Amino acid sequence: MRRALQPRIYSGMTAVTAFNLDEAIAMLRRAPAAYDALLRGLPDTWVRRHEGEGTWSAYDIVGHLANLERTDWMARVRRILEHGDSQPFDRVDRFAQMKEGQGQSLEQRLDEFARLRKQNLDELGAMNLQPSDFARKGMHPALGPVTLGNLVSTWTLHDLTHLHQLSRVMAYQGRDAVGPWVKFLGVLQCEGHSASA
Amino acid sequence: MRRALQPRIYSGMTAVTAFNLDEAIAMLRRAPAAYDALLRGLPDTWVRRHEGEGTWSAYDIVGHLANLERTDWMARVRRILEHGDSQPFDRVDRFAQMKEGQGQSLEQRLDEFARLRKQNLDELGAMNLQPSDFARKGMHPALGPVTLGNLVSTWTLHDLTHLHQLSRVMAYQGRDAVGPWVKFLGVLQCEGHSASA
Repeated sequence: MRRALQPRIYSGMTAVTAFNLDEAIAMLRRAPAAYDALLRGLPDTWVRRHEGEGTWSAYDIVGHLANLERTDWMARVRRILEHGDSQPFDRVDRFAQMKEGQGQSLEQRLDEFARLRKQNLDELGAMNLQPSDFARKGMHPALGPVTLGNLVSTWTLHDLTHLHQLSRVMAYQGRDAVGPWVKFLGVLQCEGHSASA
Repeated sequence: MRRALQPRIYSGMTAVTAFNLDEAIAMLRRAPAAYDALLRGLPDTWVRRHEGEGTWSAYDIVGHLANLERTDWMARVRRILEHGDSQPFDRVDRFAQMKEGQGQSLEQRLDEFARLRKQNLDELGAMNLQPSDFARKGMHPALGPVTLGNLVSTWTLHDLTHLHQLSRVMAYQGRDAVGPWVKFLGVLQCEGHSASA
């Protein structure tokens, strides 16, 4: 049974329900601890292997998450608040973690992700943004006009899209070991959905 | 770029590499804490909503994980050790969590998952199983012959397949709020892969 493509529960509700800052922050706060609890201290079999040349390991994924905390999310929030849609966001380097910090341990990357996320949420909280602020417009260099609400929501779903990827990459390492159960484990049927996840 | 379907890194290695008890236990130990760090205290928007009628919420998924700790994994380990492949495993009730424990909070289900997992790993450790034991045969009621190694590996990948599902179910709740970013978030393109995940 594939999931039913049915109307979502909140269809018909207002945009306020579709974006809620407290709900977004509740998720953003928890993600580093979830990645940490799953990955810290795990054997390299689980965290350093990927799905083939050009794909990402758990180690690469955590490096990417830490990198975007440093370079992307809050820079885009500030860009919207300072320049609206008159100045597009800088582009993201999705491969920065492949070029920099290769000497870092997984644990250092997890620490950096947690530290930068906390710092960013502290900064976001100090901005004291009001519901109306989340309708403010920015300009994405490829997607065009977006709102501040879209941006903060994407930040939360970005953690989840990489958790989706991470669970698949890790499961892939045990693909042979499960024997006949391979056909009951949905994650082993997933071949990825996008450029990076 | 979809992941390359290339030979896995350990192809050509022996079955001992494909199943390693210490690596399996390292994962099994961490999973309850990872689910806990992500979910405990999150608003209901994230944890009680699903993807449409007949699909599972985060709350349902954690109930399923706890239920299988109670009824399935160790019962199958014992079945193999006591009866080999002469007596098939009992079938799993994948919907038990929809019928029982509906009054439980998410936090109670997380606590139960963690408590039962710890108890099961303690029992597994006390069995002092040797590498040769993991080739012992059991009988799955639908899949036919499997080994003890297949079973323990499936236990680890079962945590991951439901983490894959969980990240998708949660991301689905923010699908409208991300606006144009919907096409960059791979998890939103996923429609599930199997009966339950």
